[in-house]
Amino acid sequence: MSEAENHVRELGGRARAALPALARAERAAKDAALNAAARTLRETAGELIAANAADCVAAERAGIGAAFLDRLTLTPERIEGMAAALEAIAALPDPVGRLLDTTTRPNGLAIERVAVPIGVIGMIYESRPNVAADAGALCLKSGNAAILRGGSDSARSTGVIVAAMRAGLAAAGLPRDAVQAVGTPDRAAVAELLRGAGGAVDLVIPRGGKGLVALVQAEARVPTLLHLDGNCHSYVHQAADPAKALAVIRNAKLRRIGVCGATESILVDRAIAGDMVPALAEMFEGVCELRGDAAARALDPRILPASAEDWDIEYLDAIASVAVVDGLDEAVAWVNRHGSHHTDAILTEDPAAAKRFLAEVDSAIVIHNASTQFADGGEFGMGAEIGIATGRLHARGPVGLEQLTTYKYRVRGSGQTRP
Amino acid sequence: MSEAENHVRELGGRARAALPALARAERAAKDAALNAAARTLRETAGELIAANAADCVAAERAGIGAAFLDRLTLTPERIEGMAAALEAIAALPDPVGRLLDTTTRPNGLAIERVAVPIGVIGMIYESRPNVAADAGALCLKSGNAAILRGGSDSARSTGVIVAAMRAGLAAAGLPRDAVQAVGTPDRAAVAELLRGAGGAVDLVIPRGGKGLVALVQAEARVPTLLHLDGNCHSYVHQAADPAKALAVIRNAKLRRIGVCGATESILVDRAIAGDMVPALAEMFEGVCELRGDAAARALDPRILPASAEDWDIEYLDAIASVAVVDGLDEAVAWVNRHGSHHTDAILTEDPAAAKRFLAEVDSAIVIHNASTQFADGGEFGMGAEIGIATGRLHARGPVGLEQLTTYKYRVRGSGQTRP
Repeated sequence: MSEAENHVRELGGRARAALPALARAERAAKDAALNAAARTLRETAGELIAANAADCVAAERAGIGAAFLDRLTLTPERIEGMAAALEAIAALPDPVGRLLDTTTRPNGLAIERVAVPIGVIGMIYESRPNVAADAGALCLKSGNAAILRGGSDSARSTGVIVAAMRAGLAAAGLPRDAVQAVGTPDRAAVAELLRGAGGAVDLVIPRGGKGLVALVQAEARVPTLLHLDGNCHSYVHQAADPAKALAVIRNAKLRRIGVCGATESILVDRAIAGDMVPALAEMFEGVCELRGDAAARALDPRILPASAEDWDIEYLDAIASVAVVDGLDEAVAWVNRHGSHHTDAILTEDPAAAKRFLAEVDSAIVIHNASTQFADGGEFGMGAEIGIATGRLHARGPVGLEQLTTYKYRVRGSGQTRP
Repeated sequence: MSEAENHVRELGGRARAALPALARAERAAKDAALNAAARTLRETAGELIAANAADCVAAERAGIGAAFLDRLTLTPERIEGMAAALEAIAALPDPVGRLLDTTTRPNGLAIERVAVPIGVIGMIYESRPNVAADAGALCLKSGNAAILRGGSDSARSTGVIVAAMRAGLAAAGLPRDAVQAVGTPDRAAVAELLRGAGGAVDLVIPRGGKGLVALVQAEARVPTLLHLDGNCHSYVHQAADPAKALAVIRNAKLRRIGVCGATESILVDRAIAGDMVPALAEMFEGVCELRGDAAARALDPRILPASAEDWDIEYLDAIASVAVVDGLDEAVAWVNRHGSHHTDAILTEDPAAAKRFLAEVDSAIVIHNASTQFADGGEFGMGAEIGIATGRLHARGPVGLEQLTTYKYRVRGSGQTRP
């Protein structure tokens, strides 16, 4: 057995031992743990800043880019944001024990479908340290035990954050092992989590880009709730209101370029491309690079040539691809082929066209006349989320507390036998 | 590329091509297809009986057992039952398009969560030919395309049944490839389905016993909705009503011995074992073999010795294991360790004990004072089911039409951008 496998098995064993107490925990205990963790996080902010500075120095020496460094860096404001997020999750309703359905059968059996925790959840993500607090807190509030595996660049920061979470658990009388971090930078630990070494985990949530897709495809032997790339489209239908479409697309692309709901590709109906494509080029000049197909480039020289790969890329940068399409059918087919089933929008004043796009585009979130950047649990009223699921089963779109539960049936009888 | 992989890829391509028409199909068209399939099944009953007779002769020559032969054999009554089941599924509500949630956000965005088909579903099952009709019909009604892979012993029968389904689809103007059967007896095709060769399937439902568990664990690369073994328990708590407990357990074990909800293991509290164990031995004498631990055997000589494996076996036979436990805590731990998270019951007149058992036993279905044989979609009011899911994600317990859908979010705006 490899060291990584041994380590993941140990983490899994401790997490599983914590489950009964977590599943039984009253809301008050879970909330107390979260609030205590927030206090500890504030009290140990100096230690966290120092650990994070060491992470950042090491990462810079390893030659990481500026955007990555920005995501890795913690400031007093960001730490306060993490603590406040823990308190906000404490304030949300308990998703465990919700009665999802009840029925009494003609034979008198009373059947209830009730929300229960999933179990041990492995979380694989990249280097933003705040994910450790958010994901750990969401798992804890939903009665699950979390095994966190962030990018190795953030290991020192994660250590301090997880220690605060565990101190909060202990203060509330809950098992510390409800939240654990993988303690080795060995990449093999990621594969072991995905394999569910020794029954370590019930579910893995891999959150990342295309690099993670291949690893999940090759290694996953446990159920996964994929949070993979967001190659989101905004499609300007021929019946779009041009000014509204431009304002929405500007926001969809540029509000924040590094989020998974950012629009990466713009489709324009040929019937209106003569005006719309130059208007897009004008709006984005100097703030966002456009890469287009031949038809788009023929309409505006500011548009650079797109390669075949551009249609499938999540840039997470101030770059967008632009293609001219021959109407709704081609737009739907294009999005279903090149998109990542995350979030896609149509801009149109034609309700029939919007209805067809919303029905036929096979994405977790389909939007009419609004920014794709609304793809966010908070914007959906969920309070907090662990990310946006891009798979098809169990949960699609924002994954909040309810999506981190499963259910069981409780059946109560008085001696019924089945004829 | 192996022949099996090539075949599964072809089936997947054809299934996927059928999806848009299926997802768009009105309820009337899907119901017409099911009713037409039922008619065709009745009209071709002679052909089906002949094909089934050939399957049975070949299977007998291959030396299969009597129980297996019984499951494989079709009679005019069983064919009528299959046709009636298709009509019953046609009569159920359409699960596609259900509004699961709606909310309007303060910014005016109207968000709907709506049920949509999952996509292409691969179904792996054993030799009961009626599963082809049931599973194909449930997939069709829920807007999914089905690729069916039954046991090779039933291949001729399956061919006639699937032809009837496809004739029904064509008669209703829906794509025939909504229902396909794997056309090779090659076992490698099962592995290719589980691997989702070339994106063939979105979900595989493996329905079977322990033999399938290892194959799924080794080969599955696509989401699965496991329908694995049912090692169900009935636990006689010290506060049980003895007569009620005996009647329920008799039904739970013997009503039908070959169903996954049949009780396989009986636990008895030590405090009442002196009366209950001999009463069980008396009741089952001559109709069900009991295999017990040392404590049970000391109480009644009719009980045979159990081996260590007996506690984990789904007999599907007139055999049950019996163990004496030291109260509720040990019973819960026993069920969680030896059970298969399918269906487990407590017999007790103590509501507090029942509440704890129902909360702490981690099974899809937990029952108080009723037979485990109620583990059935029809008994839960679902109308029809594809089986009982034993995994944790997406669906647990009976999988009916609703569980064969997933969802998407439809968001309607009027030009909203995100601050």
